[in-house]
This record gives sequence, structure tokens and C-alpha cells, in this order.
Amino acid sequence: MRITVLRLSHRPERDKRITTHVCLVARAFGADKVIYTGIRDRKLEESIKKIVKRWGGKFSIKYTRSWREVIQRWKNSEGVVVHLTMYGINLPDIMDRIRNAKKDILIVVGSEKVPSEMYQLADFNVAVGNQPHSEVAALAVFLDWYFEGKELRKGFGNARLKIVPQKRGKKVTILSK
Amino acid sequence: MRITVLRLSHRPERDKRITTHVCLVARAFGADKVIYTGIRDRKLEESIKKIVKRWGGKFSIKYTRSWREVIQRWKNSEGVVVHLTMYGINLPDIMDRIRNAKKDILIVVGSEKVPSEMYQLADFNVAVGNQPHSEVAALAVFLDWYFEGKELRKGFGNARLKIVPQKRGKKVTILSK
Repeated sequence: MRITVLRLSHRPERDKRITTHVCLVARAFGADKVIYTGIRDRKLEESIKKIVKRWGGKFSIKYTRSWREVIQRWKNSEGVVVHLTMYGINLPDIMDRIRNAKKDILIVVGSEKVPSEMYQLADFNVAVGNQPHSEVAALAVFLDWYFEGKELRKGFGNARLKIVPQKRGKKVTILSK
Repeated sequence: MRITVLRLSHRPERDKRITTHVCLVARAFGADKVIYTGIRDRKLEESIKKIVKRWGGKFSIKYTRSWREVIQRWKNSEGVVVHLTMYGINLPDIMDRIRNAKKDILIVVGSEKVPSEMYQLADFNVAVGNQPHSEVAALAVFLDWYFEGKELRKGFGNARLKIVPQKRGKKVTILSK
């Protein structure tokens, strides 16, 4: 199963760090790719590419103008669209159905205002708890449930750096230059 | 068990949204309180208090100058200190020990640079996967594991607003004015 994250309406000034966190979470928790809309931000792209180079894996980031087109293409290729929103069905009540669909997943992560059309286009509107919190947290917990925690042990190919877990302090192995 | 989150080195300009997300995640995923250090930010405090008023529960936010004092007090009162860091022991390898301690937990969430002393003072340095991602995500996933997903169904007393989960669209019940 391929998992892509679609981040809506990025604004470099306001969202710089939140979108960066969304991308890093997507990679660390097992998604293959992030697509973002809004205003193009080459600094963001560079910083994510740098992380991938250092820490490994094949994660990629792509900018596109039209979120509708991304969703339409995804639906045409038989994938399911999961929209994370506090107004949706609570994660514990819907995860089995999403997992059992056994299809590629496009996870849509909004920012402040998500067009109401998005709620209609999604196959699943999913709340990670029906409380206000964070799209970064929602994405992480969704992926952690989806992969049942196994993503926390995921290896990343071609890494230059690798952490050796420590009780105290920091230990990083440099695998290549 | 009481759970408090300690957010280190908040800088209003740079961290506004990330710290807000840390606080909202702490509340939504079952912590009782957040304490933050760094630069005092009354806007942040107001926005969190507003959320609690609207969405319920007893979550509180407090500023303090010295993180060392918070940790020392916590240790003197027999609680354990969990420091979330990508360099620590991976969550799946340590969660049972933390849960079995059956003690109040102070979860420390850093920002860019965490003093090395913190790694020494913590009872547990915990990595939510040993990859770079986000303190917001790390906190959410840690709490979700700790509460075994039950926090996603948690009710919040005295809420003015409550979401009624929907397949499509938004439905909010106004419980009082």
C-alpha cells in the first residue's frame, strides 16, 4: 500500500514550521510522499530533501496548485481519500474499515480553513479524537494506528546518519559521507 | 496518575504555533497541565484558557522560569520524569516499564536545543521512533500509547461545545452559553 500525504494551503510565513513537522512526521511514520498546495516554498522543499539525504529512505515532496486534481487522480486510480478533521468519525470507530479497504491512501491534512467540498470528496472524514489539537499530531497518531506501531522500528535505506538509542545522552553513527 | 507536560524554552515569535499545538495535544490526549519555560507569552496562555472554557475539562497552563526546579520538585514528590528525544530508547522498548512504574509523570518536551543536563535528570529518555520529526507528534503518540487509545474517547466536563462525529460535514452541539 502506498501512502501519500496532501497538505492543503501552505503559507510560508505562517505555516513554515507546522508544514515542516507535517512532512517530517509523514516520512518518519511511514508515508512515501507529501504533496502540498498553497504558496510554493522552496526552502521547505530543500529542508525536507536534506533530511531525506541525511536520514535515508525514499520520501519525496512535491508542490502542486490544484488539490482537486490530486484528489481526482487519486480516486481515478482506485485509492481512498482520508481527510483528517476533528469533525469526522473518531479514529477507533473507523480504522478497521480503512485498513480493510486494502487500498493506497491519500491522507489530507488541512490548515485553518478547509473548503466544505473536501468533506464531500473524502471517502473517510476521520477525527483523531473529536477535540481541537494539531494536524501534526493527528497525522502521527493516524499512521501509528494504521501501521500498528511497527513504523517506529522502520529502517531507512541509504541513511548517512543513524541514531543508536541511549538511556542517557546522544549517540549517532555516521554511515557514509 | 497525574500527567504534566513541561515545555522547554518557549520563544513567542518562533514557537507560537508549535507550543500552542503542544498544549492542545497535551489537553486532548489526557494530560492535566502544561508548564512552560522560556519567554512568558500571555497570548498563548489566553488562547489555551479559551479553548478549555469552550471545549471543557480542567486542563491548565502555567509559566515558570526554572525548569530545573520543576524537575526537582517532581522528583521530590516521587513522580517520574520522561524526556522525549529522538536519541532515547525507542517507545515500544520502554513503555511497559514506564506504565508499570505507576507514578505521576512529567513529560519533558524540548525545542531546538535541550541542555545535556536534561538527559541526566530524566528517569527515562524516550524516542518516539529514532528519526527526526516533531515534539507535537512525539507527545501525542506517547500519550496515545500510555492510555492505549482510550484517551481518544475521553469526555471533557463543563464543555460549551461538543462535536457530534459526522461522515461528512460539521456538527457541533452548543451545550451552554
